[in-house]
Amino acid sequence: MSNDKVFIYDTTLRDGTQCEGVSLSVASKLRLAEKMDKFGFDFIEGGWPGSNPRDMAFFAQAKKLELSHAKITAFGATRRAGSRVDKDAQVALLLEADTPYVTIFGKTWLLHVEEVIKTSAEENLKMIEETVAYLSENGRKVIYDAEHFFDGYKDDSSYALETLEAARRGGAEFVCLCDTNGGTLVDEFGSIVGDVVSRMGDMPVGVHCHDDSGLGVALSLEGVRRGASMVQGTINGLGERNGNANLCTIIPNLSIKMRRNLDCAPNLSKLRDLSLFLDEMANLRSDTRLPYVGASSFAHKGGVHADAANKVKRSYEHIDPALVGNRTRVLVSDMSGRASVMMKARDLGVDVDSKDPVIGEFLDELKRLEFRGYEYEAADASFELLLSKFLKKHSDHFKVRGYRVIVERDEFARTTKSEATVKLEIDGSIEHTVAEAHGPVAALDLALRKALVKKFPKIKDIELSDFKVRIIDSDAGANATTRVQVETKDSRRVWGTVGASDNIIVASWEALKDAVEYKLSEDS
Amino acid sequence: MSNDKVFIYDTTLRDGTQCEGVSLSVASKLRLAEKMDKFGFDFIEGGWPGSNPRDMAFFAQAKKLELSHAKITAFGATRRAGSRVDKDAQVALLLEADTPYVTIFGKTWLLHVEEVIKTSAEENLKMIEETVAYLSENGRKVIYDAEHFFDGYKDDSSYALETLEAARRGGAEFVCLCDTNGGTLVDEFGSIVGDVVSRMGDMPVGVHCHDDSGLGVALSLEGVRRGASMVQGTINGLGERNGNANLCTIIPNLSIKMRRNLDCAPNLSKLRDLSLFLDEMANLRSDTRLPYVGASSFAHKGGVHADAANKVKRSYEHIDPALVGNRTRVLVSDMSGRASVMMKARDLGVDVDSKDPVIGEFLDELKRLEFRGYEYEAADASFELLLSKFLKKHSDHFKVRGYRVIVERDEFARTTKSEATVKLEIDGSIEHTVAEAHGPVAALDLALRKALVKKFPKIKDIELSDFKVRIIDSDAGANATTRVQVETKDSRRVWGTVGASDNIIVASWEALKDAVEYKLSEDS
Repeated sequence: MSNDKVFIYDTTLRDGTQCEGVSLSVASKLRLAEKMDKFGFDFIEGGWPGSNPRDMAFFAQAKKLELSHAKITAFGATRRAGSRVDKDAQVALLLEADTPYVTIFGKTWLLHVEEVIKTSAEENLKMIEETVAYLSENGRKVIYDAEHFFDGYKDDSSYALETLEAARRGGAEFVCLCDTNGGTLVDEFGSIVGDVVSRMGDMPVGVHCHDDSGLGVALSLEGVRRGASMVQGTINGLGERNGNANLCTIIPNLSIKMRRNLDCAPNLSKLRDLSLFLDEMANLRSDTRLPYVGASSFAHKGGVHADAANKVKRSYEHIDPALVGNRTRVLVSDMSGRASVMMKARDLGVDVDSKDPVIGEFLDELKRLEFRGYEYEAADASFELLLSKFLKKHSDHFKVRGYRVIVERDEFARTTKSEATVKLEIDGSIEHTVAEAHGPVAALDLALRKALVKKFPKIKDIELSDFKVRIIDSDAGANATTRVQVETKDSRRVWGTVGASDNIIVASWEALKDAVEYKLSEDS
Repeated sequence: MSNDKVFIYDTTLRDGTQCEGVSLSVASKLRLAEKMDKFGFDFIEGGWPGSNPRDMAFFAQAKKLELSHAKITAFGATRRAGSRVDKDAQVALLLEADTPYVTIFGKTWLLHVEEVIKTSAEENLKMIEETVAYLSENGRKVIYDAEHFFDGYKDDSSYALETLEAARRGGAEFVCLCDTNGGTLVDEFGSIVGDVVSRMGDMPVGVHCHDDSGLGVALSLEGVRRGASMVQGTINGLGERNGNANLCTIIPNLSIKMRRNLDCAPNLSKLRDLSLFLDEMANLRSDTRLPYVGASSFAHKGGVHADAANKVKRSYEHIDPALVGNRTRVLVSDMSGRASVMMKARDLGVDVDSKDPVIGEFLDELKRLEFRGYEYEAADASFELLLSKFLKKHSDHFKVRGYRVIVERDEFARTTKSEATVKLEIDGSIEHTVAEAHGPVAALDLALRKALVKKFPKIKDIELSDFKVRIIDSDAGANATTRVQVETKDSRRVWGTVGASDNIIVASWEALKDAVEYKLSEDS
């Protein structure tokens, strides 16, 4: 076991966005970069400035981020064949991105040199060396990604090695061997990395793997075992086709099992958070079966008593789940439910005995609601209201009699109109209001506020700041259950609420109603 | 490269059903067994007769299956400590299952022997030998599964090897090494398998791996490389926690890349079918990112890759997708340019010149729509309709005059009602219909079909199979843009459509409208 440092290089923001069905807004990319920096990644590849305006916008704003550890890198290609590097528009954009590091990829495989970019073996070497040199002269540190390295090496190993030497001559700081098509097997990958590492001497070598053969993680670990000191990958293995090598699996394997030195090691217990955060940003359903971080990773079927399960824990779990921020779940009777409810009650200043039957009733209700599609992780305010009602510490400030929404589309006039009416009972009297907006939820929100503002003027201070919709059982077609999560803010704080129903309007209403009720209850 | 036969042993029907949220009916298990036999699996583990009545029912009916190749095996444990094997109820049920093979597992790791089953090292060896011998004497061929073999070997290698010798003395036909907790790394796994294979001489050795470290496939391949001649796993990697080793990844790796001799090799092109069939039986959504068989496996998004894949297929695909029954797909996204649109057009059977100015206009419109929130990756049918309209190859079968949705909630009666009206113009005459449902989208869908069915009876054949909603700029609060994706199917195929709007009803309508228009246009 070695204690060598391994650099973690993340390409979620670039290669990860190649994943089918995934796109990340500039705002999400910025939040992810901050999160990855905090976690302890060494390099964050932000995008390809030459490929789309969104990536350029990211780099413009990324300069303002105050990162404590990670280096942002811009990704791009070598100059085009037969042109001057200082006249190459794509290379110019790489400089314009204004990042401390630039990562460029170049061709290794003669099949690609000759048939895809249609140039000569000689010119390809010049393209690599000149581009690396030009970027270095302009103050950038350069990581050279050797595309299709393994296919190229198997086809013509001496040419493949020459491309790396060209990058070295240009002044590259790292060379990284990419298994671009993801087709290489572990043993041959290992011998090739071993050969390159010994030939490159003190030039650090990285590996960049894909999961096309189901081996993305295995290849990355084998790379390190054979001397690579940088691993490129993505959070949750997001990426084109079958995905990139999954850093959320590689990191604990390297740190816990191979005992390598990683700068993110002290934050390993935040690994599951990081994985969930990406899903949130990319609006993806979390894959419960992801190694280490998935909700099923330490889930045991069968009616084992929690205490007994604890005794033989080591015998059924390959690591302590807490190391990666995960936990053991006993699928029949989950005992940690009660513990977290007790913690929450104390949080609310409610003194309650854990053996009080009301806690059991509350847990039953919670299970019923979760089964119906509610989820409280991002809806603290709804959870708090529900618990307070069970503990008789809260009663609603208004009673809902009913509401109605009408959406009308005229294709001739190309107009859409949404009208909502709301009927509330407040202190025995009826408030019946109507409002109009473009969409039905905005109309409901307006009508609800209109009904409350006379009696509760402070409702004017709040603002709906986030609105999310997720279909839970989407294969039920148009009758699917919808979960709506709303985030609301006033000048002091932000709170989340949730609604779920097979009617999207009803789910939205419930989240809106909890949001205002929470505000009304805050000082009472 | 060796030409040795590797036996494929499937445990989908037993270990696979340990997967969180999965259960298989007896009827589904029988259909799966037939399918696996036809595909060419060597062994099908049907269940554990001692664990539940459903498994016993399976074995009773499985006897009537006319399998052409596969051997059914019943799974169970060694006799209990301190008892007689011929008096052991669980062992008796294994005989009652009446299968040609029986697979029994026993303890390897002394931690388990002493702390879990609380017996002596000596008695454990007797349990193994006596159970194997008893089953053999009763006419069964026996496969011995050594539970926690790798943890046990690392703890006390000579005891671990003794347990295998006990199975050999009992008359086992195979011994199989199980990485039960899924925690072993590839290189140490390889050395241990290598050691066992050389010590066991002519006794065939199998491996049984899990994916807890993301290495289930890599370990299985390494096992074969080190001399194992049987691989146990499941279809799609179904299984407890992070799943078992995925046979749908292992089989093409062994057959295509490692050139091993597999009896299922002639049916490799049915591999994707097999994977989809399991999802259907288990009612699971297909994981599009599964290596080899997933719908994304050969999908190309980036402009560069899509262009190159078109030029030199081999340059971006590690195998020919047809080998496993899959195909190349080109995804349309804001990262792709003219090349991917051209490929897509060819995919659709539309012959168009890439220099035709209409392609430029189409790309501009596409960018505008993508900016407004449309996304076509999962909406092939909407894309095809749009492109066909640009190429003047399509005109709509109906014209929308307008529609209206009313959602009404009565909190007293606790009832919600959605009513939709739709007004269409078909061949110059008006169809004005109304329908009711629980949710607004379901109501719209019904009213739309009602308006069309008289003129286009084939609309009855289609079914909405998936419905997804995504808020794009969620920080715009209730005015956020919503993207709706709908998946529709008939008896032959599945197609995706998309709508986007700041009004969720309008977005849903657009996706529904494209879905039916696509069906109407299919044969015209």
